[in-house]
Amino acid sequence: CSKPQFTVKSVLVTGSNRGIGLGLVKRFLELPNPPEWIFATTRELAGCQSKDVSESPVMSIDVTDPNSIKAAAKRVEAHLQGHGLNLLINNAGMLRVTTMENENVETMAIVYLTNTVGPLLMSQEFLPLLKKAAQQSTQTGLSCSKAAILNMSSIAASIEVVPLWELRKTPSYRCSKAALNMITRCLSLEYKDCGILCTSIHPGWVKTRMGTEAALQTVEETTQAILKIISTLSEKENGSFMGWDGKIYPW
Amino acid sequence: CSKPQFTVKSVLVTGSNRGIGLGLVKRFLELPNPPEWIFATTRELAGCQSKDVSESPVMSIDVTDPNSIKAAAKRVEAHLQGHGLNLLINNAGMLRVTTMENENVETMAIVYLTNTVGPLLMSQEFLPLLKKAAQQSTQTGLSCSKAAILNMSSIAASIEVVPLWELRKTPSYRCSKAALNMITRCLSLEYKDCGILCTSIHPGWVKTRMGTEAALQTVEETTQAILKIISTLSEKENGSFMGWDGKIYPW
Repeated sequence: CSKPQFTVKSVLVTGSNRGIGLGLVKRFLELPNPPEWIFATTRELAGCQSKDVSESPVMSIDVTDPNSIKAAAKRVEAHLQGHGLNLLINNAGMLRVTTMENENVETMAIVYLTNTVGPLLMSQEFLPLLKKAAQQSTQTGLSCSKAAILNMSSIAASIEVVPLWELRKTPSYRCSKAALNMITRCLSLEYKDCGILCTSIHPGWVKTRMGTEAALQTVEETTQAILKIISTLSEKENGSFMGWDGKIYPW
Repeated sequence: CSKPQFTVKSVLVTGSNRGIGLGLVKRFLELPNPPEWIFATTRELAGCQSKDVSESPVMSIDVTDPNSIKAAAKRVEAHLQGHGLNLLINNAGMLRVTTMENENVETMAIVYLTNTVGPLLMSQEFLPLLKKAAQQSTQTGLSCSKAAILNMSSIAASIEVVPLWELRKTPSYRCSKAALNMITRCLSLEYKDCGILCTSIHPGWVKTRMGTEAALQTVEETTQAILKIISTLSEKENGSFMGWDGKIYPW
């Protein structure tokens, strides 16, 4: 079988203090050929569980703070010692449980800043390292082993589906994730010629602090499935909305 | 022919100082049965061209300012003397000509606040008057003659199409309008049982200050077409993305 091996030499995961972010870090560590560099980042280092699992540095990044991102990009570059960054996973996100009536300027703004603007800022600052990884790669086409940005979206982003409306309204969250899908599309168009893939990921409904215990999937099975999926991504899936289950979801 | 007549007794249009907003106000005034109340609103009254065409009060609304919206809703309610508001057209919007490189927290925030949060805030504050119009109507189903919110979107909102990428990047604008389409979907689900329709409108590429002189359509033909389209909207088009040309566009 001549299928190219899934070999990510370096990966950065935001929001890896718990939940899906932490699960992804663990899954990368468990790979037969784990990345040489796993940058597990979190807004607040205190209480971050990634410290227990990763041998790479756990870094502080507040994705809503451009200076925090800039500083982290410098530190990551220093660690990589001339290598590029293969994979940026914009996983950090927040949910405010709001209704159509009590949604307001403040909730709309903070959720958008965190879930939409944050991933854009991260992509801007880590772009030179992603470009470098693409240039250093001998692979043709696009893949997560070469250079990629994965944006952790949600089926709640689907303007077509608007799932579970009766259960939860959360317009700020739905808007922020729909806009994040637009960021995915913009990045995928802008940087494909640089060799960088960008895809939105719908992780399913997961038993995390955000997903609650009522959710259908455990973090372990979700992150296992996501790693399997992202190992198969190519230029065909560039700019798509890919589920943990391998299905393409509607915008 | 038993087709119900298009009779809007009251309409409010934001951003009616120029461009499409001003054109819509003019077209409503030209109807054989014009609305009794046309509330042409603008952020700044100085230089507003709607003053020249509307006999109804031209009001100041800054859609990014909740207090400005609240005050206007009170004034509109007083004018309507017990009648509801049939039609709210969230037309006010802004564009910042940005790239993937120079987009930043400030441009993302101001464009989102204006294009996405503003229409949500307007809908929240004018909801009681829209509900009243629906209750006062003898019509069954949903229509713009009864009670409706129209959000002026753009094909630039389409995550599927991402049109004219090589011409203009403007991620902040694309994200804000994609999120506005999500607001449309949320409103359409939440308020259909109150008798209120909500639809996104794609006005085409129009010769306005935003659309530039290179655009394909004049304000007059665009607004004429939009009035024709909105006169036909029913529950079938609730929560859809409807073009000036009568086509449904993909999210």
